Amino acid sequence: MQTMTSASWNDADVREGWAQIAGKGPFVYGLTNYIAANLSANVLLAAGAGPAIGAAADWTTTFPAGANAVWINAAALMSSDEESLRAVARTAHAAGTPWVLDPVAVGAGASGYDDFIRSLLEFKPAAIRGNASELIALAGGAATGKGVETTVSSADAVAAVSEFAARTGTIVAVSGPVDYISDGSRTVEVPGGDVRLTKVTGAGCALGALTAAAIFATGDPLRGAVVAHAAYAVAAERAGARTRGTGEFAVALVDELSLLGEDVK
Amino acid sequence: MQTMTSASWNDADVREGWAQIAGKGPFVYGLTNYIAANLSANVLLAAGAGPAIGAAADWTTTFPAGANAVWINAAALMSSDEESLRAVARTAHAAGTPWVLDPVAVGAGASGYDDFIRSLLEFKPAAIRGNASELIALAGGAATGKGVETTVSSADAVAAVSEFAARTGTIVAVSGPVDYISDGSRTVEVPGGDVRLTKVTGAGCALGALTAAAIFATGDPLRGAVVAHAAYAVAAERAGARTRGTGEFAVALVDELSLLGEDVK
Amino acid sequence: MQTMTSASWNDADVREGWAQIAGKGPFVYGLTNYIAANLSANVLLAAGAGPAIGAAADWTTTFPAGANAVWINAAALMSSDEESLRAVARTAHAAGTPWVLDPVAVGAGASGYDDFIRSLLEFKPAAIRGNASELIALAGGAATGKGVETTVSSADAVAAVSEFAARTGTIVAVSGPVDYISDGSRTVEVPGGDVRLTKVTGAGCALGALTAAAIFATGDPLRGAVVAHAAYAVAAERAGARTRGTGEFAVALVDELSLLGEDVK
Repeated sequence: MQTMTSASWNDADVREGWAQIAGKGPFVYGLTNYIAANLSANVLLAAGAGPAIGAAADWTTTFPAGANAVWINAAALMSSDEESLRAVARTAHAAGTPWVLDPVAVGAGASGYDDFIRSLLEFKPAAIRGNASELIALAGGAATGKGVETTVSSADAVAAVSEFAARTGTIVAVSGPVDYISDGSRTVEVPGGDVRLTKVTGAGCALGALTAAAIFATGDPLRGAVVAHAAYAVAAERAGARTRGTGEFAVALVDELSLLGEDVK
Repeated sequence: MQTMTSASWNDADVREGWAQIAGKGPFVYGLTNYIAANLSANVLLAAGAGPAIGAAADWTTTFPAGANAVWINAAALMSSDEESLRAVARTAHAAGTPWVLDPVAVGAGASGYDDFIRSLLEFKPAAIRGNASELIALAGGAATGKGVETTVSSADAVAAVSEFAARTGTIVAVSGPVDYISDGSRTVEVPGGDVRLTKVTGAGCALGALTAAAIFATGDPLRGAVVAHAAYAVAAERAGARTRGTGEFAVALVDELSLLGEDVK
Repeated sequence: MQTMTSASWNDADVREGWAQIAGKGPFVYGLTNYIAANLSANVLLAAGAGPAIGAAADWTTTFPAGANAVWINAAALMSSDEESLRAVARTAHAAGTPWVLDPVAVGAGASGYDDFIRSLLEFKPAAIRGNASELIALAGGAATGKGVETTVSSADAVAAVSEFAARTGTIVAVSGPVDYISDGSRTVEVPGGDVRLTKVTGAGCALGALTAAAIFATGDPLRGAVVAHAAYAVAAERAGARTRGTGEFAVALVDELSLLGEDVK
């Protein structure tokens, strides 16, 4: 049986989960693409986590074991080799460190890249986050991506997301006008956000990093993913309300995330 | 016979060309250096294009064929090997995808790097964009660059730029206090901008990416390059008028680009 | 005998040193991690220096000789190989170009990475800049880093910093609530700044780049390091006074650095 519930920043347990991130100050390690690395780190810092990024020397085999949570954005392949990404996933899995997979641009036409992403599922991510085109493609459906952009609405991906979560035993979160987060039987919708999130490069990637931090902080992959998405949505709304263009929106997004703690004092 | 005309955002056909970018929403793929990658992607998003960047797995041999336009910033060599850049140029050329070359820092003293850039000309870029030192050096003149900075004014490069365009059959665009864009017989000057464009890292690189998008959108390399440069100049002027330092100017530049569409509604 | 003095932006010779950066407009070359590359370049541009970053083709063996100053952030290993970093250090050392080492995340648990950083000391950096955990670990003390973050206050590192500076014959600068900069016998404390400097990714890394520029501009490693740290502290204070969150603070930091020249006209 499938259930669908809704969550937002208005829920006390979402705000409580957010406060747990800063309360625990987790060390979150990731491999991501260099376009999104700076924003991802600043989003984590805004939430009270301590990020480190990159495959420098033996970081890939030591930091995933020492970290509290890990994320891998597959486009990290643009500056690291496949074995580096695999080492991070393998080390996190072996150490029991929860890790989040962001399969950015899967299904956009590069089949070798797509195959590599699928191979990472062996190391059991705690959550997978992407847009609708990416998650439908990763789940085995039609490849509809246009580069890193989706051509499908998140609402059209709900069934695929839920089925994929049930099949792989992981949390799957799809970003869109409404975000949907599923563990296979329970699906939580998170409304809100701002359309300019799709106009800021790396905004989705950074949400994957934040999801990793929240999963550790709450100790619950479904709840952590919901907390991260709901916090992101309200920060985007507040940023949207006080800016006009995309440049200032991007700055205000980080700003509002860093100020969310004032709501939970 | 050489002609010299002038263009700016005040021209209806420049604004019309700008509107075509958002109207077509092209997928624009590029390899660039990691310093400029974030800004380049955000500039493309602000214009209504959909960017993807980086040499991840088989992206280099698939995305240039699937994309509407491509740009290569030669300093992408800082995180990708020579064959990756060559594969992108070769694939774009073979597929008929227009591509823009940014020969950043050519002529600054690294002769192996300079030779590699020249080797890319075999794949016939639709346009080449740089500062005066870079374009004079690439055209075979004196090497006068100081790292990525020019020591020569754009006005002093006009003859070299026009000659180089005629010789190579490509559009050549030089950035400076006045930008000049030439196809070898026609040269268009684009005044305006803001001196702080030289104080924001990657601002020139991002203009190369935008030029690729505009060439596809207008279907005309000379016109596309003019549209991109004129839009950039007016956005920089507006950003300059409402900021004092370089930090806020950089944010406002993207902001104003994202709001230019309101002029053309 | 050890001396301890204090310095800040209020000192005329600090402001004079700052003015020398823009006056000389040095070409500053660096290898750094891609998270911090954009901010580092923009900080250098705000100070009036001309940055180039990255191990593209033969840049590593030519630019350190042609540049006025160099910095190496060891996490550049995330996109460049060990020989690239070594080549930059070796070339700078051989050419007499002063260079700054930022041993980011040393002592955080990756021993292979830590060993590589120590091997760079052979090439005699003019200055080393880091946080307390990093510098204590590099000096041979306990490894206390949590990723790139410190778990120790800068005040607790003063003795280790001074001893390490004396032993290696280099300037050592530790960032924290108060910064301390030592040549082994003289230690200068630089108060001020803003706690949000620890919430902006790459803010410390960018200070290393700025230190390299100031060392060249002043012709004195201790004085240059003090100038860079004091300028950064006052810019952070001014940025802090006019912003609330971390997103706007990061933008305002660069903004205020670019406006410091107005104090010294």
